[in-house]
Amino acid sequence: MQILHMNKGEGESSYAKNSTVQKQIITVASSILEKSVLDSVHKTHPKSMGIADLGCSSGPNTLTVISKIINTIYAASYQMPELRISLNDLPENDFNSVFISLPDFYSNLKKEKGIGVDECFIFGVAGSFYGRLFPKNSLHFVHSSSSLHWLSQVPPVLNKNSGKHLNKGKIYISKTSPDCVLKAYLYQFQKDFFDFMRSRADEMVAGGGMLLSFMGRSSPDASAEVGCHQWELLAQALMSMVPEGLVQEEEIDSLNAPYYAPSPEEVRNIIQEEGSFLINHLEAFEISWEGGNACDKHDYDDLQKLSRGQQVAKTIRAVVEPMLVSHFGREIMGELFTRFGNLVDVYFSNTEAKHINLVISVTRKE
Amino acid sequence: MQILHMNKGEGESSYAKNSTVQKQIITVASSILEKSVLDSVHKTHPKSMGIADLGCSSGPNTLTVISKIINTIYAASYQMPELRISLNDLPENDFNSVFISLPDFYSNLKKEKGIGVDECFIFGVAGSFYGRLFPKNSLHFVHSSSSLHWLSQVPPVLNKNSGKHLNKGKIYISKTSPDCVLKAYLYQFQKDFFDFMRSRADEMVAGGGMLLSFMGRSSPDASAEVGCHQWELLAQALMSMVPEGLVQEEEIDSLNAPYYAPSPEEVRNIIQEEGSFLINHLEAFEISWEGGNACDKHDYDDLQKLSRGQQVAKTIRAVVEPMLVSHFGREIMGELFTRFGNLVDVYFSNTEAKHINLVISVTRKE
Repeated sequence: MQILHMNKGEGESSYAKNSTVQKQIITVASSILEKSVLDSVHKTHPKSMGIADLGCSSGPNTLTVISKIINTIYAASYQMPELRISLNDLPENDFNSVFISLPDFYSNLKKEKGIGVDECFIFGVAGSFYGRLFPKNSLHFVHSSSSLHWLSQVPPVLNKNSGKHLNKGKIYISKTSPDCVLKAYLYQFQKDFFDFMRSRADEMVAGGGMLLSFMGRSSPDASAEVGCHQWELLAQALMSMVPEGLVQEEEIDSLNAPYYAPSPEEVRNIIQEEGSFLINHLEAFEISWEGGNACDKHDYDDLQKLSRGQQVAKTIRAVVEPMLVSHFGREIMGELFTRFGNLVDVYFSNTEAKHINLVISVTRKE
Repeated sequence: MQILHMNKGEGESSYAKNSTVQKQIITVASSILEKSVLDSVHKTHPKSMGIADLGCSSGPNTLTVISKIINTIYAASYQMPELRISLNDLPENDFNSVFISLPDFYSNLKKEKGIGVDECFIFGVAGSFYGRLFPKNSLHFVHSSSSLHWLSQVPPVLNKNSGKHLNKGKIYISKTSPDCVLKAYLYQFQKDFFDFMRSRADEMVAGGGMLLSFMGRSSPDASAEVGCHQWELLAQALMSMVPEGLVQEEEIDSLNAPYYAPSPEEVRNIIQEEGSFLINHLEAFEISWEGGNACDKHDYDDLQKLSRGQQVAKTIRAVVEPMLVSHFGREIMGELFTRFGNLVDVYFSNTEAKHINLVISVTRKE
């Protein structure tokens, strides 16, 4: 929990400046989000509407999602419900930068829609969404984007303190990983995602909707290339540093990412097993490693100077650096991501590299 | 709003390390707090209890108050209500450090009282308590300590951009301040405190209780020494830097603190004018500038090396430094607070320096 957060602040390596892939994912899921919000409003017609964004992170995407949700409700409502909006992430998330942007957010809301501070209340909630975060029956709509591929922990048998190195030279499921590694990852995901759905079942009112999107894979085989190749290349970059003594091989052997990219079937099975939600929509779609060309204008010139591989390295670095720093130390990060970027460039020369993203819309049953 | 926050982090000058006066105030008000919480529970017997701490700041005091409130409810309840606890401060407050301490807080709550994460929900709320922060009728108990003496703004006529310097050589009401300065401050306090009470009236259920404590004065005369002498000495320290060119006199003339220490009568009048609350208790008590000897053990050795004046300078610096930095720049802060500490030492040689603190307990009328 302490190491799983995006790079803080507004600097060169910050998540705030390097979240174009996640932005692209939000854009692609936009029409399904809109449908899911409208459906929740029509099924629950709340006077006071509880809304939560789980794994909100901090950066331009955080309030973009909330804006989209408010706009949808606004466009569809004769009488706006009171909005109770909760932004959730782990305690290490940079909530300060989210909160500092709220006064502007509120003043735009007033200017553009006449919604005042007595009609829309925004809360920060720090904690793991694999447990309870909200009072019973208090939520009408829940959103979570680019978060549920992070597990609550490294599968215990693969933990660096387990004493065994079952996944040598790798940091996630790889083609060479033994079957027990795949099973350990799948089991952890099943447990976590079940806990997630059960917690939300307690918190949501009947008829309430939830839109989830996160990294997945299209193949039933978890060691197939698509869905884990960024980890493969990161392991290669780390391994390339071993001969020079920059990294100890044992350090790589003992690291496994608390991450899992499930197949649509794996997700469907857990939702059905938990049993409180109806699945409206479950879709896998491809998204470029570069996140389309959705870079912010002010960063555009800088990005032009970087190779495509180095651009991808920046977006991955913003997300995984805190985890890697806690394991390898800060000193090697620059070198590591340069090598990683070069490997991505080579990979791009042979492949049209894609992430698989899953989008799932569900409704809380009566 | 941007400049009014305590010194962040955990460093030497941080509020977290220098909040002993505020801690002492919480200790003194402890029995009234307990009574007020119990009264709220008995009058509203909530199944789900909304609690808010307004101006929670960040540091050891933040969760101390919440613990005291939970302990009181726990000791008095056959069946614990669900707790919805909101921690509020301005958006610039260091919410990150509060949130990082929550996992330990939750785990102690479970260990000591068996209260789980599905029974106690903690929210962060960033915004000014002079406006609405919470949904209608959602709160059963409200607490605010050491916050309401901060105004929403410098009285406009005394603002540095007003073009006039009505309070030359001073930064708060002083014996030499013209009457219009006293009036401007009183008017701003009346407006702010009325807005505060009106906002809480909307948010609280009938029978709900509120405990407020903040700096005040015992004398009806706002320019009397007690209640503003720390500002007087700070102005003297600043003025002493003018001859050396470290500070421009015009900069001092144009600065006025967004602060007001009201008399008990001024507070009573506004509560009665607003009309939604019954006053149960209104008391003024003295508290030493040094906050008793309530310093934390780990700081004790360091503090022993400092004069009493320098110790006081540290507690005041933690609170007012961001405001002064935005006006004078960071460079002179060390020198300013050394001079201020020396002036406090001289003052101590003649006087038993006391703050006056007001404690007010009210109940939301039917």
